[in-house]
Amino acid sequence: MRLSQLPWTTLKETPAEAEVVSHQLLLRAGLIRRLTSGIFTWMPLGLRVLRRVEQVVREEMDRAGALEVLMPAVQPAELWQETGRWERYGDLLLRIRDRHERDYCFGPTHEEIITDLARRELRSYRQLPVNYYQIQTKFRDEIRPRFGLMRAREFVMKDAYSFHLDQDSLDTTYAAMAQAYTRIFRRLGLRFRTVDADSGEIGGSRSQEFHVLADSGEDAIAYCDADGYAANVEMAPTFPPAAPRPAPAAALARVATPDSRTIEEVSALLRTAPARCLKTLLVEAADGGLVALALRGDHNLNAVKAERLPQVARPLAMATAERIRAVTGVPTGFAGPVGLDVPLIVDHAAAALADFVAGANAEGFHHTGVNWGRDAPEPAVADLRNVVPGDPSPRGGALEIARGIEVGHIFQLGDKYSQAMHATVLDQDGRERIMTMGCYGIGVSRIVAAAIEQNHDAQGIVWPAPMSPFDVTLLVLNPKNSDAVTAAAGALYLQLQEAGLEVLLDDRDARPGVKFAEADLLGIPHRLVIGERGLKEGLVEYRRRRDGAEEKVASSDAVAFLVRQLAATDPG
Amino acid sequence: MRLSQLPWTTLKETPAEAEVVSHQLLLRAGLIRRLTSGIFTWMPLGLRVLRRVEQVVREEMDRAGALEVLMPAVQPAELWQETGRWERYGDLLLRIRDRHERDYCFGPTHEEIITDLARRELRSYRQLPVNYYQIQTKFRDEIRPRFGLMRAREFVMKDAYSFHLDQDSLDTTYAAMAQAYTRIFRRLGLRFRTVDADSGEIGGSRSQEFHVLADSGEDAIAYCDADGYAANVEMAPTFPPAAPRPAPAAALARVATPDSRTIEEVSALLRTAPARCLKTLLVEAADGGLVALALRGDHNLNAVKAERLPQVARPLAMATAERIRAVTGVPTGFAGPVGLDVPLIVDHAAAALADFVAGANAEGFHHTGVNWGRDAPEPAVADLRNVVPGDPSPRGGALEIARGIEVGHIFQLGDKYSQAMHATVLDQDGRERIMTMGCYGIGVSRIVAAAIEQNHDAQGIVWPAPMSPFDVTLLVLNPKNSDAVTAAAGALYLQLQEAGLEVLLDDRDARPGVKFAEADLLGIPHRLVIGERGLKEGLVEYRRRRDGAEEKVASSDAVAFLVRQLAATDPG
Repeated sequence: MRLSQLPWTTLKETPAEAEVVSHQLLLRAGLIRRLTSGIFTWMPLGLRVLRRVEQVVREEMDRAGALEVLMPAVQPAELWQETGRWERYGDLLLRIRDRHERDYCFGPTHEEIITDLARRELRSYRQLPVNYYQIQTKFRDEIRPRFGLMRAREFVMKDAYSFHLDQDSLDTTYAAMAQAYTRIFRRLGLRFRTVDADSGEIGGSRSQEFHVLADSGEDAIAYCDADGYAANVEMAPTFPPAAPRPAPAAALARVATPDSRTIEEVSALLRTAPARCLKTLLVEAADGGLVALALRGDHNLNAVKAERLPQVARPLAMATAERIRAVTGVPTGFAGPVGLDVPLIVDHAAAALADFVAGANAEGFHHTGVNWGRDAPEPAVADLRNVVPGDPSPRGGALEIARGIEVGHIFQLGDKYSQAMHATVLDQDGRERIMTMGCYGIGVSRIVAAAIEQNHDAQGIVWPAPMSPFDVTLLVLNPKNSDAVTAAAGALYLQLQEAGLEVLLDDRDARPGVKFAEADLLGIPHRLVIGERGLKEGLVEYRRRRDGAEEKVASSDAVAFLVRQLAATDPG
Repeated sequence: MRLSQLPWTTLKETPAEAEVVSHQLLLRAGLIRRLTSGIFTWMPLGLRVLRRVEQVVREEMDRAGALEVLMPAVQPAELWQETGRWERYGDLLLRIRDRHERDYCFGPTHEEIITDLARRELRSYRQLPVNYYQIQTKFRDEIRPRFGLMRAREFVMKDAYSFHLDQDSLDTTYAAMAQAYTRIFRRLGLRFRTVDADSGEIGGSRSQEFHVLADSGEDAIAYCDADGYAANVEMAPTFPPAAPRPAPAAALARVATPDSRTIEEVSALLRTAPARCLKTLLVEAADGGLVALALRGDHNLNAVKAERLPQVARPLAMATAERIRAVTGVPTGFAGPVGLDVPLIVDHAAAALADFVAGANAEGFHHTGVNWGRDAPEPAVADLRNVVPGDPSPRGGALEIARGIEVGHIFQLGDKYSQAMHATVLDQDGRERIMTMGCYGIGVSRIVAAAIEQNHDAQGIVWPAPMSPFDVTLLVLNPKNSDAVTAAAGALYLQLQEAGLEVLLDDRDARPGVKFAEADLLGIPHRLVIGERGLKEGLVEYRRRRDGAEEKVASSDAVAFLVRQLAATDPG
């Protein structure tokens, strides 16, 4: 494509509306334009990125034996009423009424539609398993759309739904989808992790998320590359420390800590590491009283784990200052295990402490040299906290923690929808059987944003090669000044295309500085510059966007050189 | 694709809901499924057809320099209010209100959205011309959706919108689009005509329609392949006959025609051809009285042309029997030129008659041997009728008439939207100028239906090769009975794919009769059959879907044979 033929508008300033870097760069580089809240137009260069993502997704779904269909965007309310989601889905569902006063919605997802299709199309176990997928525009009426494509209202999804006679068959397709997703994100050149999204209690992973790693990610992921484990931080279990608890060495002492209530304040005052202080949290109990949950000062309570304890009220509720004073007689910030008269449950790591600091259950005082079994009873122990880097993985390695953006989700639905909508087939014995289902989503437009969150620098986007709108950009310096330069650029442009490369030719009548800056902003992985001086020497200048590596290349070798560069950056 | 992996359901019976053959065959062949009124799911085989059409459209739009974008489906009411279409578009517009009580619609077309984009993106004449296009799902809330994909509510459109500084530039892009559309429909292998959709009065074609020819088409098209002329029958002009009017030969006579009022009745009674009878129609006049319009008995009044006459009231209204009796004193069916006392305007062809039959302006009587200038005054003459086959084309040839299905429309919008939305650029002199616009639509999903309307027989669909879901279908007879047959079919399947062909392998465990019938229903242009008997002789059976031509081919030559067949049927 010749940039002179494209009315491309970039923005120098960061748009005030854009909070995250992907939104900023998508707007600045002219890849999308906002129509209204959470609704965007894909501009020519942006659409090329979206299409490349779509194509990789399509190829891998096809390879995995999924069948592409295209379901309607507009869905009748009746089907959503069958599953009860017409009410339950709430205001996220964009409701529509037609000229005949019939109710519809703009589909945010298609479980009802595909289950209705399946119950009419599929009659025999012989037709199973089936995995239907589509790539389609969807709508969720987010209350506060933000972050550009990360949480848009109108967005592009790949959604797939599989139908099975039994769990074994579902497991097989589910595993094939996990594999296809891994191939997709690998082929797109993204750093990602596959994360167990449920507790794994029911036996085997029934739900996994695929996260693109990026510092700006909304989710924290605990993973170990050595053993392959990965889970949402909330879901990763902790274990009792391997080493036994040290024997008590210090005497119990009561010290005045008049204005120190938080771990930070107390540990600073007493010159003790937070890891040697006990954090005692009072929460509402299931029986109407309070329960104390104690953790190491450097650890954080995990609400999901706390809620799982039978003693704790659900949902988890921290006790108010009034409740704490009424039950313990002490203001917030001074609770501790010594002489505490509410039930106490202690995290593994906190139960392994010796000679630690804790609240003294008296206003303005803490204890030092506290030891379990001596100063306070041996406590009830549980897994109460979020994992931290270095914690053991359930598979034996050591965990790291990174932030991630969810771009894919695979899920074993079981018979939730097929039961509600009576989607059955006849089995080998001629009996009617409810089908078992899986569903598999990829946020196609979200991937574009996530890729930028992961791959950018101060100058702009740094596309992973497989997602870049073009393979290479060819900048012509001052084309108006020299017919020779223009002719040479035109010839090289054709040669690169003949070699199978997608080329963006910047043949605009613009200053070189503008061209360089806009090329960096747009983020095409490989750049060639052709100018009058270089041409005289028979050279073009190569620059790699990601690391800025530069090289002067003989014009005659430019195509072969580029082909080698592309092969080197292809994640295969 | 292996049919054994596809849960494909065909219907033997014609679904009662389907009135037209494309709807019937799309449902019967399992290409689409109805979700609700006017809303369909594209099944795997159907989607392949849609995608092939999309791809040809995309390639030709790109080749013509148009830039692909993707605009949102959900559009804010504010923009539609700017152009006044929020009200004017009426109930066809599917209106939506979001959780914040803001109004939107599901876009049936995108003039407002693209004009809003253009007024923000385009600032200088240097950026012009631009032609943006998209391929997208749209919605029109038809009051009575019918004919399947022909008049669906949710459908896939290619819409393009161009922006220009002046009319010359618009003319250039408009011509390029006309050429691109011609290439598109030719490449799809469809018989079509490009039709002038306006009267051409303003000078030059400002609107053209592209019609796929099919007997079931809603529109009648007058065309001449010799001179390239084509227009809607309503739009094609007629001309005075070249030959002079014959001299009167018969005497005027009054004959009793007591129960004969229509041309058919009178011409039968008097043994005269309808072409020698005068049809005198009384319509409301602009001045509040009546006007008589006279045509040859075998011709039909053209309402558009009649309305253009200053003497005639708009909209055209036939006079009621009461009005006719009140003004002429005679009941309907007996009006004629002799002694008529309302103004009379006569069609060219009727004005060239001599010795003709006409009403006698008396109940139960007609005249024979009527002649202009002798029995009635020389009449005022005008073009009042629809063309008929054999009429001269405005370019000199002879017209034929065919029925067509509109699948494309190109249109010079001028400044209708850019004026209303103040979409301007700065011109060479730094002055603000309203942009001039064109728009160019293709009914992508409608093409699929139109292709079937044009290409089918009693057995099913007969796809034009470029739209077929597969290039060839390979039927395996009784695969369970012979491992050799299965192995040979598998090998041939691979070889055909390696030769670049898209192959549907019918490896199902089904009766040969079912396979033959379903292959005919699905309509893939080329069929190969591999069975035990043929295999022993080293032969496979070839059959061409369109004409049933059959040939036995050596297995070893099957791939080369098929490649030759494909090359022969490529309209390319």
